Amino acid sequence: MAGVIVTILVIPQSLAYALLAGLPPQAGLYASIFPVVAYVWLGSSSIQAVGPVAITSIMTFAVLSPLATPGSPQYIALAAGLALCSGVLTLVFGIFRLGFLSQLLSRPVVSGFISGSAVLIIISQLKFMLGIQVKGDNTWQTLLSVLSNFGQSNPVTLLFSGIALPWLLLSRYGLVRMAVRMGIAKTKAEVWVRVMPLIVLGTASLLVVGLNLDNAHHVAVVGAVQEGLGNINLFLPDVGSLQQLLTPALIMAFIGTVQNITMGQALAAKRRERLDPNRELVGLGAANVVAAFYGGMPVGGGLSRTAINLAAGARSPLAGLVSALSMLLIVLAGTHWFARMPLAVLATSIVVAAISMIDLKALRQAWSYDRADAYALLGTAAGVLLLGLEMGIATGILLSLITLLVRASTPHIAVIGRIVGTEHFRNVERHGVETIPGVLFLRIDESLFFGNLNAVEDRLVAELQKDARIKDLVLIMSAVNRVDTTAMEVLSDLNQDLAARGIRLHLAEVKGPVQDRLLNTPLWQSLSGRVHLSVNRAFEMLAAEKIADAGLYVI
Amino acid sequence: MAGVIVTILVIPQSLAYALLAGLPPQAGLYASIFPVVAYVWLGSSSIQAVGPVAITSIMTFAVLSPLATPGSPQYIALAAGLALCSGVLTLVFGIFRLGFLSQLLSRPVVSGFISGSAVLIIISQLKFMLGIQVKGDNTWQTLLSVLSNFGQSNPVTLLFSGIALPWLLLSRYGLVRMAVRMGIAKTKAEVWVRVMPLIVLGTASLLVVGLNLDNAHHVAVVGAVQEGLGNINLFLPDVGSLQQLLTPALIMAFIGTVQNITMGQALAAKRRERLDPNRELVGLGAANVVAAFYGGMPVGGGLSRTAINLAAGARSPLAGLVSALSMLLIVLAGTHWFARMPLAVLATSIVVAAISMIDLKALRQAWSYDRADAYALLGTAAGVLLLGLEMGIATGILLSLITLLVRASTPHIAVIGRIVGTEHFRNVERHGVETIPGVLFLRIDESLFFGNLNAVEDRLVAELQKDARIKDLVLIMSAVNRVDTTAMEVLSDLNQDLAARGIRLHLAEVKGPVQDRLLNTPLWQSLSGRVHLSVNRAFEMLAAEKIADAGLYVI
Repeated sequence: MAGVIVTILVIPQSLAYALLAGLPPQAGLYASIFPVVAYVWLGSSSIQAVGPVAITSIMTFAVLSPLATPGSPQYIALAAGLALCSGVLTLVFGIFRLGFLSQLLSRPVVSGFISGSAVLIIISQLKFMLGIQVKGDNTWQTLLSVLSNFGQSNPVTLLFSGIALPWLLLSRYGLVRMAVRMGIAKTKAEVWVRVMPLIVLGTASLLVVGLNLDNAHHVAVVGAVQEGLGNINLFLPDVGSLQQLLTPALIMAFIGTVQNITMGQALAAKRRERLDPNRELVGLGAANVVAAFYGGMPVGGGLSRTAINLAAGARSPLAGLVSALSMLLIVLAGTHWFARMPLAVLATSIVVAAISMIDLKALRQAWSYDRADAYALLGTAAGVLLLGLEMGIATGILLSLITLLVRASTPHIAVIGRIVGTEHFRNVERHGVETIPGVLFLRIDESLFFGNLNAVEDRLVAELQKDARIKDLVLIMSAVNRVDTTAMEVLSDLNQDLAARGIRLHLAEVKGPVQDRLLNTPLWQSLSGRVHLSVNRAFEMLAAEKIADAGLYVI
Repeated sequence: MAGVIVTILVIPQSLAYALLAGLPPQAGLYASIFPVVAYVWLGSSSIQAVGPVAITSIMTFAVLSPLATPGSPQYIALAAGLALCSGVLTLVFGIFRLGFLSQLLSRPVVSGFISGSAVLIIISQLKFMLGIQVKGDNTWQTLLSVLSNFGQSNPVTLLFSGIALPWLLLSRYGLVRMAVRMGIAKTKAEVWVRVMPLIVLGTASLLVVGLNLDNAHHVAVVGAVQEGLGNINLFLPDVGSLQQLLTPALIMAFIGTVQNITMGQALAAKRRERLDPNRELVGLGAANVVAAFYGGMPVGGGLSRTAINLAAGARSPLAGLVSALSMLLIVLAGTHWFARMPLAVLATSIVVAAISMIDLKALRQAWSYDRADAYALLGTAAGVLLLGLEMGIATGILLSLITLLVRASTPHIAVIGRIVGTEHFRNVERHGVETIPGVLFLRIDESLFFGNLNAVEDRLVAELQKDARIKDLVLIMSAVNRVDTTAMEVLSDLNQDLAARGIRLHLAEVKGPVQDRLLNTPLWQSLSGRVHLSVNRAFEMLAAEKIADAGLYVI
């Protein structure tokens, strides 16, 4: 039952995303049949649904529209090539258990990418909502063209989208809450809300047919949708197009992987299941390979599809199979039903879906939690909009790597003291602590490597200059997880330099793995001070020495 | 006095490096006059010496020989452009206090670069040592050409280099020790050893003159060295060559910066001085800018020049001025003395200098201390030899960044317990410790960021599966210096996931800066366990709870 409901509900989506991808509408229907079967067979999630999704569709359009005319046989062949490449890559990720590679993308970068893509999608649909022609090779040109041609909007088309937009927005954002308040069970309400786009589309289609709006008022409609299955697609990409498709296919595979794993894990957690991410990837990859041979439209794990699945009551992979079978029947018999569906309403439903993809919450959260992550998010989104999808994601990766390096290069270093009456040591600036005159305890909160030695040295010099009495410097290594060759040499030089100035260098709380490496180095062997197991032992020992030396001990 | 000695000693070097750079011999002499004055005026090191050095010379040759015929006016103009660019860049680094940028290069990468360049230098000199012609656009072709033409070697030339090589090697590596053993003071011995190349070259030149070897036996000699100062060089580079020169100039400036700062700091430490690295860079940059206008040969801070300076007794910048003045006199009056110096012996002296640049000690040290650094060193050297100087250094930087990322992505995670009778917590695998049944203490030795969350989660899952009784998980954050947005979200998900499975998540020893950020996040606000100031408090509290729960407490 859930399977049949899902089929009916996803038809408008499938048609819309095919058009978004620049492919003939039936491609979206085909992509909801065989790839679903492949995924049910090989994937591990029991309720995740694959099919045409917004993000792969806009990527397909963005990548291929500069290479061929959308809808042309060459374009369709390239789309199939893209699905094949990204499918094979995803399969390889899954089989060789390389799912962890998707870690290269941080969540803010992925979120920025999706939000940026959503804006691209919205801009691409404006011409259908207004019923105008636009020109433009990039986002700004398209947007400008929309604005300058706004006056030529088709009034009936504008009326359709003007009515559909608030209605669809309301059904997505307010209706469930309203229904629940009116006493309808939440799951039931969710199904009805999902049906709303279908009702809107159906009503609009009936209006078009009844009033002959497409012929009388030039309202653009879907047009003839090929009935039956056609032939298996055997346009395989040649070497030249393979080179052009490889990078976008890789990005598609990566983004697909991240989305699939993130969403799959969240779903699995809700249902107390454990997800095998790599098996998921095998399923998703196989689905795309199959998609390449039938219709040629790249597919993904769809958030809204899965939500529909869950809301409709799907509890096992069987629902997926039933849904594929129902879609097959529709393709074989009923595609003429969709021919006079108005594009304006379809485009409006895509826009509403795209609006929900813009993740302002993630931006707000990153902004308040970690400004650098927020910049990476914004940078990725801006990159997607201004430079294209590939450069956008490259911008994001670059920003996150630069953040990592800049942070590792500017370590937090704290002068610490002992909280009176305890064995705890804390930052002297944050806590009231006791210190030993002439002894400096410095905690370095970062692994030492070639990139941050200057910063560490500068701080050391500054601290030593503040207090000329210092005769013992204790470096607390509890947060130093590694010391590379350059750092070891610089510390070794520092040890000699300090010794020449009459200052002893001590180390405390050196981690096991770090100590193992340092044992045979000049630093360890000629250290002017001692290596202390704990800061407290260093404190006790140095305090006792000072008392012995001077006969006094000032807290 | 030291100044005059230095001048005489560096003459062969200056001529040899000019030839190595593909410039006329007098360029090396000019480069030892005005740049030295500029450096004495603006630099901060009292005894460091600038002038033509091996590394800038081979870089000049490597960069410019594909662009113009060595020795041609165009080549000389390009060399001047290179000196100017690298000088201006170095000046900018110094003035804007950007010396820290040289941190991008780790010591192993710099060492690999210098060792690789040294091998390049040796290969480039073989043709002079053998008296043959070679062809070849890259290292391997040149080497093959040398091997296949070995039979055509000029016998007298071969004799010269065959005798000079062991003699110069001995004087560099064994003579000081022998002299000291024979009772000669070390500093005196060092001066005499430095004089040895001059004696060898002088003897060889006298042999050439006396036996007329250059004319009778085709022994290649330096040839006419222009006397007098010539004109100020005003061939400034045009925009096209500027673009070609910018990257190599940047590398030259970087390598120069690193060498200068490293060497300068070592010298300053020996002499109980403090070095201002940025002022050093101003001096070095100014020296190169001046060099560009007179003779056009890029200069550097020379290790062997400085060593000669020190050995000859230079104690103040005055020595540099005297040396420049003496060189000026020689250029004005005596360059004809060098015309019949045999190239074979000059080349041999370069080879001996280059051999001393191959830093096997650094490789051995890196190999035993940190294998990844050793690979970066070898990769850089191999890159320099196989792909050229620019790609070599790029390889090195890439390898060191990849190492950083790979390490940060594979964090060390330890299950820890308390050392009995103390408040110290250590790895259960390394120390005999007490633990609490049902409580898992995990210490994560790395900042948490998007790239290592998978590894952390995998380890967590594995540890939880080992022991189904675990009801409390304590993450010890003493070595976690940052938690990025992705990590915060994943931890938050983990907290919920564990709570659903009846496991509480605790945090202990969260650092101040990390805690500040986490305070307003869902993780902190809905943490199923507690936040503990110290591991010991967590241990005590959880142990007490277990006792209360079960009436027993097993150590």
